[in-house]
Amino acid sequence: MTKFLSDNAAPVHPKVWEALRAADEADDPYDGDALSAQLDERFTDLFGRECAGLWVATGTAANCLALATMCQPHGGVVCHEEAHIEVDEGGAPGFYLHGAKLMLCPGESAKLTPEGIAALIDPIRDDVHQVQPHAIAVTQASEYGRTYSSTELAALSGFAKTRGLGLHMDGARFANAAAFLNGKAHDAAGMVDTLAFGFIKNGGMSAEAVVLFDPTQADLVKYRRKRAGHLQCKGRYLAAQIIAMLENGLWLANARHANAAAADIASGCGERLMHPVEANELFVRLSAEEREALRTQGFEFYDWGADAARFVTAWNTRDEDAAALGRAIASL
Amino acid sequence: MTKFLSDNAAPVHPKVWEALRAADEADDPYDGDALSAQLDERFTDLFGRECAGLWVATGTAANCLALATMCQPHGGVVCHEEAHIEVDEGGAPGFYLHGAKLMLCPGESAKLTPEGIAALIDPIRDDVHQVQPHAIAVTQASEYGRTYSSTELAALSGFAKTRGLGLHMDGARFANAAAFLNGKAHDAAGMVDTLAFGFIKNGGMSAEAVVLFDPTQADLVKYRRKRAGHLQCKGRYLAAQIIAMLENGLWLANARHANAAAADIASGCGERLMHPVEANELFVRLSAEEREALRTQGFEFYDWGADAARFVTAWNTRDEDAAALGRAIASL
Amino acid sequence: MTKFLSDNAAPVHPKVWEALRAADEADDPYDGDALSAQLDERFTDLFGRECAGLWVATGTAANCLALATMCQPHGGVVCHEEAHIEVDEGGAPGFYLHGAKLMLCPGESAKLTPEGIAALIDPIRDDVHQVQPHAIAVTQASEYGRTYSSTELAALSGFAKTRGLGLHMDGARFANAAAFLNGKAHDAAGMVDTLAFGFIKNGGMSAEAVVLFDPTQADLVKYRRKRAGHLQCKGRYLAAQIIAMLENGLWLANARHANAAAADIASGCGERLMHPVEANELFVRLSAEEREALRTQGFEFYDWGADAARFVTAWNTRDEDAAALGRAIASL
Amino acid sequence: MTKFLSDNAAPVHPKVWEALRAADEADDPYDGDALSAQLDERFTDLFGRECAGLWVATGTAANCLALATMCQPHGGVVCHEEAHIEVDEGGAPGFYLHGAKLMLCPGESAKLTPEGIAALIDPIRDDVHQVQPHAIAVTQASEYGRTYSSTELAALSGFAKTRGLGLHMDGARFANAAAFLNGKAHDAAGMVDTLAFGFIKNGGMSAEAVVLFDPTQADLVKYRRKRAGHLQCKGRYLAAQIIAMLENGLWLANARHANAAAADIASGCGERLMHPVEANELFVRLSAEEREALRTQGFEFYDWGADAARFVTAWNTRDEDAAALGRAIASL
Repeated sequence: MTKFLSDNAAPVHPKVWEALRAADEADDPYDGDALSAQLDERFTDLFGRECAGLWVATGTAANCLALATMCQPHGGVVCHEEAHIEVDEGGAPGFYLHGAKLMLCPGESAKLTPEGIAALIDPIRDDVHQVQPHAIAVTQASEYGRTYSSTELAALSGFAKTRGLGLHMDGARFANAAAFLNGKAHDAAGMVDTLAFGFIKNGGMSAEAVVLFDPTQADLVKYRRKRAGHLQCKGRYLAAQIIAMLENGLWLANARHANAAAADIASGCGERLMHPVEANELFVRLSAEEREALRTQGFEFYDWGADAARFVTAWNTRDEDAAALGRAIASL
Repeated sequence: MTKFLSDNAAPVHPKVWEALRAADEADDPYDGDALSAQLDERFTDLFGRECAGLWVATGTAANCLALATMCQPHGGVVCHEEAHIEVDEGGAPGFYLHGAKLMLCPGESAKLTPEGIAALIDPIRDDVHQVQPHAIAVTQASEYGRTYSSTELAALSGFAKTRGLGLHMDGARFANAAAFLNGKAHDAAGMVDTLAFGFIKNGGMSAEAVVLFDPTQADLVKYRRKRAGHLQCKGRYLAAQIIAMLENGLWLANARHANAAAADIASGCGERLMHPVEANELFVRLSAEEREALRTQGFEFYDWGADAARFVTAWNTRDEDAAALGRAIASL
Repeated sequence: MTKFLSDNAAPVHPKVWEALRAADEADDPYDGDALSAQLDERFTDLFGRECAGLWVATGTAANCLALATMCQPHGGVVCHEEAHIEVDEGGAPGFYLHGAKLMLCPGESAKLTPEGIAALIDPIRDDVHQVQPHAIAVTQASEYGRTYSSTELAALSGFAKTRGLGLHMDGARFANAAAFLNGKAHDAAGMVDTLAFGFIKNGGMSAEAVVLFDPTQADLVKYRRKRAGHLQCKGRYLAAQIIAMLENGLWLANARHANAAAADIASGCGERLMHPVEANELFVRLSAEEREALRTQGFEFYDWGADAARFVTAWNTRDEDAAALGRAIASL
Repeated sequence: MTKFLSDNAAPVHPKVWEALRAADEADDPYDGDALSAQLDERFTDLFGRECAGLWVATGTAANCLALATMCQPHGGVVCHEEAHIEVDEGGAPGFYLHGAKLMLCPGESAKLTPEGIAALIDPIRDDVHQVQPHAIAVTQASEYGRTYSSTELAALSGFAKTRGLGLHMDGARFANAAAFLNGKAHDAAGMVDTLAFGFIKNGGMSAEAVVLFDPTQADLVKYRRKRAGHLQCKGRYLAAQIIAMLENGLWLANARHANAAAADIASGCGERLMHPVEANELFVRLSAEEREALRTQGFEFYDWGADAARFVTAWNTRDEDAAALGRAIASL
């Protein structure tokens, strides 16, 4: 069986294992250890602008803690109608934001544009009867594996600024997006206020980072992280994972590998592709019979509605498996 | 330097490391893997009554998710005035229980008694102006390292039942309590409704268990766990830790070791002890000069107010270090 | 100027004033007075099935307190995408339900159908990643002034029961709906679990009722009402309003008057009507110039988008004003 | 029967009735009417410093909405351990503040002092494990009918400022306190940030005011008021009550009457008084037999524990009834 179900259950990368073991040595609790203490500087170096970096165990928590810096309980967060925070986080934003509202915006390939957002929020009356938007959340790469270019991000951050809205980026697959773009973290992040930087799908075990480009917000997030039960007492094991991923660009190398595998599969899909393949996810038009045929050949993947399938590659996808899947689809 | 600061930053036990590495093999996401699937049965076997077992990353989350099964947002949870959930969880119960109230009860050695609870809640008028208690939370071992005997637990669960209250046990150091008692999990847990069973302080890395003795509550906790951002996609690494700890009684062996080290230190403390030493924590009357003297000898520990110190042993405390500390205190 | 802006600012009905003054006599605080004590029986008589009736000061509070009996914080409430609870209550359901989600359903004239709801909720995966529906909320009369017949309500309550969902009715204009139907409260309410029965728009000052057809839920609502700051100490003045409205069918008489006025206006609107006029609201296609012309004649009303207007009649709308408006529209 | 149970169920003052009836005329909904529009200026005039004034229906809502301007969900509010917000508001602060914590401080006659607060909060570790105070709430007059002098208030506001804490005043009986002090609202309020100014106990029906001495906070409170279901559509009837009470000092005259009645009773109590009588509440040591004797004579009041009783006077307490009660107690 060759699995293309998701990158979210891939094994932990050997370099991350090494770092985890080495973290046994440190012994200060919570985030008081030497590894956790490095994160601000590591991310500041990576993004080329001052920021704070905090570990948490899940992307859901990372997104929600970041959003709490920019949306009050009586406000709203504009996101795509198929955004993970809306569709797949079990209502976590409602919990973390104390009842704030997700304001759902359509958009091609699960991407937002200033025009689309304006069309959603301009009709909102400026009175207390209607929930006002406080923030925007984009996903890089999007739920359909599409990326935002720096030009698109500049337009979004300009729009957010003009409207007085915060701008958050869900970067569960930020590495894959950056790898597709120019490999530069700062271009892939643009001028967002906060980023949930994903490492787990990309070779980590249990550590994502909340990156705050306004470091004065770090205190708020630290209190909220504790309050949400996300301040692990052996936090050094989370910091170690993140540092290992950032070290020598492992995050980018892993993502490039996964992206290349996806591109390889894509080359066999032709017109079947529902979205251009820019990261490590493929959405492919396939009939029930075709899906059955692929499964008979040993490929595992999720159905995507009645007439399509989703394939996801990961840092550990074997080249030959990707090539085989590409050929198999081409041969249908 | 010999550290007696806390057990919460101790390294991960070799058996747990082994289990973690082995978990690379599994590859189903969230709690759909074969390891997570074993937890219900493992805990049912251990406690000898049917229960559900769910992993989470912290004791704070474990406590709060368990309490959410028994306390509505408009209710209250009776706990000791020095309970961890009141003093050291950054307001997490207020978050998870949506504003419910902790109702603070005094009690010797941070333990609760039916009489003490009755004295607290009996004066509450049965009207909507006053928050009504919905649950009781005890800590086994208590914040001062004391244990509840099965007799005491029976009295508490009887009382809770009579009053229609849920009964939760914060078991951050449940293993140490069980080791002091008769080594039987079911006696150390009594007839509580829910237990936050701690493994992290006892050799784990990042996994505690919520044990629900009414397994029909598991669904609620699963939805709330996801909503709190605590459903890790590589959850198998948490399940692996718990299983490793339960395997061949490692949880008990580790706790016995820590308790023995504490007892060894206690033997040098005599009248200085503020509380009988039953688990792995010691609260010792020591003047500022005496504490300084111990630190000069290389012992690390926390002050406990102006005239005392707290020492904590762990699964990896070396016998000779404990003996040395005991002698050092005796020689003051 | 003749106002058709809304019924929500109409003066208080003389009979209600009388009852308010008479309530000076009573003097037990909160809901301990003789008037508040009558509500359960009054509503039980009216609906012909046992229920509890509680006063609150606003429809928003009434809706939210009722929904809290059927939707947990991690669940969702299905409502029309233009429902008042979604569009015009400032996020109150998110607050009262502690972050639960409104699940938006399309439907003609702002009405829901079992088929429409099924189309919305059937694709929701039965897993913790997706918020599960716990309840349905309908509005009688709907946001476009349409009513649900008993047949439609029976279909909805049957559907809700089958799916294990609670069923709430926002009855801000319940009286107008009942007046349009057969004048029987129990037919207009069908077998809903809870009803927010509006009196304020219909001649009251500051009292709506939460009607609970499962009276065992009354305790929950009473605690939540207090907790929301809605337990007024001089609650007798709210009870008095409700009783005055129920006495001798004043609620129905007032609604019939408003409906008749609306029907009169409707008779001049012909093809301009966007929705059949069943209650006391009219949505009328009118160009900007036509609206200007009406305003010049002294009529006040709200624009409804770029090409329409909304007119609302009330218990105190004068027959001649309604007739004049109908003629004015007909003459455009 | 002569009632001294509470001032919270007294009838509505004739001047307030007049104003209510007159408000029928106005007809703009919510707080868009001419009466509501006056409140900012009315309170600014009264207090001699710029402020915003908003009506709400209960003191509970007023307190909680005010506190929401100064305490974040992860923070705490220091209040007296017998404060109304802690003891008698059904957990409303936990609801409105989204789980924030009330931090309970002892203090004579239910009053707080900078020293008492410092003793409570200084031991709080400045780390994320412990909830940090964000605000202080005092009650004027206190739960035992005591007042804060301007000197005491200056000390409290200085302390709050130094510690970076907000300062709120629960003024359910603010008028009685002001009447006892020098009759000047600004001296009775000191430099608090927010005041819940009570009118209901003092002759109103259903209107209290949230007074915000930083008017830029008004927007937040308006959104939160709507979200809490406290924006009444016929808000003019609330504004009318407040204006009637402020007009020609009715608020002060009513309070002076109640205070005088209390003083008259107090003159018969001698050593029995548990607290000096400064406002309109008396806490009097009376045995069960003595209380029975008073009740036999027709006096109604609440027991206050096993050995005391509480008597409350109101704007409508008859002089002869107060005198009779004073004599009756003196004769025991």
